[in-house]
Amino acid sequence: MSCTSLIFRRPIPDDWQRVTAVLPAWWDGRDLRAMLPRVFFEHFRSTSLIVEHEDALVAFLVGFFCPDHADEAYVHFCGVAPEWRQVGLGRDLYRRFCALARADGRKVVRAVTAPVNAGSVAFHTALGFSVLPGDDEVDGVPVTIEPGPYGDHLVHFQLFLEGET
Amino acid sequence: MSCTSLIFRRPIPDDWQRVTAVLPAWWDGRDLRAMLPRVFFEHFRSTSLIVEHEDALVAFLVGFFCPDHADEAYVHFCGVAPEWRQVGLGRDLYRRFCALARADGRKVVRAVTAPVNAGSVAFHTALGFSVLPGDDEVDGVPVTIEPGPYGDHLVHFQLFLEGET
Repeated sequence: MSCTSLIFRRPIPDDWQRVTAVLPAWWDGRDLRAMLPRVFFEHFRSTSLIVEHEDALVAFLVGFFCPDHADEAYVHFCGVAPEWRQVGLGRDLYRRFCALARADGRKVVRAVTAPVNAGSVAFHTALGFSVLPGDDEVDGVPVTIEPGPYGDHLVHFQLFLEGET
Repeated sequence: MSCTSLIFRRPIPDDWQRVTAVLPAWWDGRDLRAMLPRVFFEHFRSTSLIVEHEDALVAFLVGFFCPDHADEAYVHFCGVAPEWRQVGLGRDLYRRFCALARADGRKVVRAVTAPVNAGSVAFHTALGFSVLPGDDEVDGVPVTIEPGPYGDHLVHFQLFLEGET
């Protein structure tokens, strides 16, 4: 699989159906579709990305610049097709998002994941994200207790962006 | 029910559970919870509102200023408890949101609804919203065809904000 043939582009609203169709498979059977309504593909396209290979969806990132906190950007979802993992696509998407955030004057990028998603914890840690202190711990990882439909614990990550653009 | 005892405030993350708990009942049994993930109660609080009466949730609005379009603001959800309708609460929430949007330099407020929600169509029309042209029509209302989990048609509204602040 050559990465030279990958296309990176902004999402369009119709991408929402393609992304949610693969979401459970890409998340090990966990159904997180209710966390990603179509509105993100309509109004947050300028901070989101779709990656395609020969018209097939191979990765995506949905993020936004936090309106409530002028110095924060937030990665809401980032997924890579299982057969496209370990080639740096997730890292590339985060790099592009961080560059956008830095250009907008954001100082920190945040993201959350469920502690069950050990791959996500390892991924964010490898990228340089730190895990925020929590009020509990799961498998040695600090978590905050936030009851929701997808579990009661969340791991909070943050990465301070460097000054240079 | 006296409106003098109503409390208007910004949402906190825990309000997400209270709001989604009432969503189906307030929407005539339609389950739209997947359109309103918790992230809105974490990062879009400055453009959202909760209304309480003696600690009971009686209305809410979740909106944002569109990052992709500098002149647009968007009302993602607005709901009023059935027993609190017809007293102007929805209108009041929209008025407050429009004031915020205008102060941010936004020129237009948009919203969508399903054509089955005749009450929403009547509400937006009464507020001065116009219905955007569509590519089909349901019960005499122009709709656009946008297949999704909650039906295949959407009514798009827009209201131009006046110049004065």
